[in-house]
Amino acid sequence: MPEFLKLIPVQQALQILLSQIQVKILPERVATLNSLGRVTAESTYSPLHLPSFPRSTVDGYAVRATDTFGASESLPAYLKVIGEILMGSSPGFDINPGETGLIHTGGMLPESSNAVVMIEYTQSVGGDTVEILRPVAVGENIIKIGEDVHVGEEVIASGVRIRPAEIGGLAALGILELDVAKKPIIGIISSGDEVIPPEGKLFAGQVRDINSYSLSSLMEQVGAFPKRYGVFPDRAEIMEEICSRAMDECDVLVITAGSSASARDLTASVINKLGSPGVLVHGVNIKPGKPTILAICNNKVVIGLPGNPVSALVIAGLFVVPVAESLLGLSSVGFHPKFLARLTTNIPSQAGREDWVAARLSTNDQAYQVDPIFSKSNLIFSLVRANSMIRVPADATGLSAGELVEVYLLT
Amino acid sequence: MPEFLKLIPVQQALQILLSQIQVKILPERVATLNSLGRVTAESTYSPLHLPSFPRSTVDGYAVRATDTFGASESLPAYLKVIGEILMGSSPGFDINPGETGLIHTGGMLPESSNAVVMIEYTQSVGGDTVEILRPVAVGENIIKIGEDVHVGEEVIASGVRIRPAEIGGLAALGILELDVAKKPIIGIISSGDEVIPPEGKLFAGQVRDINSYSLSSLMEQVGAFPKRYGVFPDRAEIMEEICSRAMDECDVLVITAGSSASARDLTASVINKLGSPGVLVHGVNIKPGKPTILAICNNKVVIGLPGNPVSALVIAGLFVVPVAESLLGLSSVGFHPKFLARLTTNIPSQAGREDWVAARLSTNDQAYQVDPIFSKSNLIFSLVRANSMIRVPADATGLSAGELVEVYLLT
Repeated sequence: MPEFLKLIPVQQALQILLSQIQVKILPERVATLNSLGRVTAESTYSPLHLPSFPRSTVDGYAVRATDTFGASESLPAYLKVIGEILMGSSPGFDINPGETGLIHTGGMLPESSNAVVMIEYTQSVGGDTVEILRPVAVGENIIKIGEDVHVGEEVIASGVRIRPAEIGGLAALGILELDVAKKPIIGIISSGDEVIPPEGKLFAGQVRDINSYSLSSLMEQVGAFPKRYGVFPDRAEIMEEICSRAMDECDVLVITAGSSASARDLTASVINKLGSPGVLVHGVNIKPGKPTILAICNNKVVIGLPGNPVSALVIAGLFVVPVAESLLGLSSVGFHPKFLARLTTNIPSQAGREDWVAARLSTNDQAYQVDPIFSKSNLIFSLVRANSMIRVPADATGLSAGELVEVYLLT
Repeated sequence: MPEFLKLIPVQQALQILLSQIQVKILPERVATLNSLGRVTAESTYSPLHLPSFPRSTVDGYAVRATDTFGASESLPAYLKVIGEILMGSSPGFDINPGETGLIHTGGMLPESSNAVVMIEYTQSVGGDTVEILRPVAVGENIIKIGEDVHVGEEVIASGVRIRPAEIGGLAALGILELDVAKKPIIGIISSGDEVIPPEGKLFAGQVRDINSYSLSSLMEQVGAFPKRYGVFPDRAEIMEEICSRAMDECDVLVITAGSSASARDLTASVINKLGSPGVLVHGVNIKPGKPTILAICNNKVVIGLPGNPVSALVIAGLFVVPVAESLLGLSSVGFHPKFLARLTTNIPSQAGREDWVAARLSTNDQAYQVDPIFSKSNLIFSLVRANSMIRVPADATGLSAGELVEVYLLT
């Protein structure tokens, strides 16, 4: 059983891999309404000023501000109301000194007006005269042309994950479709003589393939396109054939090894035959997931994950997700917000190795606390019971109850 | 312009609404592989023990633990190797006292063995004899039958949002489909004489409808089914007709009002005609979003949102999202994790009112800091520039730079 030559720290391993990725974003045109969660493949520049006309932010009277200077309850300014500005149309009149127009929130200001007096600070005195009880400054209670965005301004950068706010912003500008990054195709191959497809009938000594299902869901979640190849036995010629086919069809290849040591070694040798430079990292200083393999073969990323389903999912989160994000052109690869939470129970760990422990994060509205879920063998349902993972940094020799520790949501 | 009778605090308003919702979960059968993000409509019980056979967690030798008691490097135990357990099949042999079998990680233990000695603590001495250099306790290095889950155990509760971990767990059990909650249909109606559809050409005084797009994306994100009806003018008979049709077709109705005061009043009177009890809350003590209307009409939720797109999106996050989650049967309605971050700039606010301010949350790995994005009129691109919202509690008179404040991610 060959030893791992050296175990590389998690961040360093990720950097080795990301620094060698060739990112070529292929744009795909989609309707704005179908773009939620996609990543922009182009910068969007505003085709117009927003708003495109000066708007009132209140109900009141559009005025020339100078006409209100010095106005007070005891000494109001008297203005002549020459019309009402209807919603959705231009005013149809302009105001001269001493004149005003009734305006509603969102209404368009007459050309010579430069402020709006809130209706609460006015009083109608019969006929077409209104008393102004307070002065307004130039620009008060209005949104100027282009105050939200100017024509030509970059409103959404390239490499941004689209949220409801972006979709609303695009609608505001009348932009009905845009270029997003095509979803990278992530090939997923399970191996293991003991592994059968989930739909199969279990015989003694067999387990169902969990990784094809959990990893393809994870890839879906990150916005990639998973392509499942199924389960293959731990035999070099079979694995080489299917991996080589998958390399032609996919942008990234993820192989989960059988659980035995020989099956794990097989993965590395199969990967090295897929192209150069081949394996970059074999063995990461992390638990779970030590036997992780990171490789580049003919400009495509190939990742060998441990067969254990918890290890596979944790390592995929740490390595495959950032690779997919990077291929999507996402500008903030791997920014996953962490929580600081009070630990309820000691967690032992070995110094010099980063540990990830399934946990339940909870809050009493004042503070976060986190309970580790100990499971000696990283069983899949320990992750089902968890809502988060605690990171035990490599330089720690365990974490103590009562400490504030780093927690990441498991989504 | 009628005054709001009273402004209700945010949490109280939400409770008034949620306490009157009638939740009837309609199950929908989906393939496990298509269930990501859906909410379970049934509890899942394990059809089998997992694992279904005792497995080794290491590469080594399957033993009767008593055979190793007292073993050491200087005084090894000698065991007879009677076979190798192949991956994916039953051992095909049992071990008597003094016997052992070579086993791999994930392999099935022979019936009478109860522990595994790691290969590192053994030494082959030729022929069929192996030296055991350390003792193992009963159960050491094995996973027992049912150690992950027992047959009949509830493995996933009803009302749980499905993540990759759940999908993996279901695969492990061979459960290929399950009942999830049918997506509630959320009808979205925009109104406003000044509002035109995003695809229309803008004339003076007109703005494009943002809310239909941003709100339907938000509903998609939460796992509901948005149904957009488009933009309608602020006229009672037209609004009554379209709202009444939408009430027949949807589970929830969301109406965004035109921006003028009369348009907002119209929404309340239209809602009151849709069924009883009608409007429960008219006016919430929040900025932005004071004119929010919460109603129940013939057992369906109707929500009137302010026309301003930022107000509409913020209020939809605070009220429509929890309603959709509640109709999905989600067990943790409204748990949205908050961050405590160091505020960079003072935020003024009026005591007695809850304020939400768009912001940028950032981290230097040690701590979070948050920059408010001030925008006097809640322009849509202030949300595009934001990644989070700061909550200014109702009892605060502003927040000061340097304080730790509550921040919620804007996803």
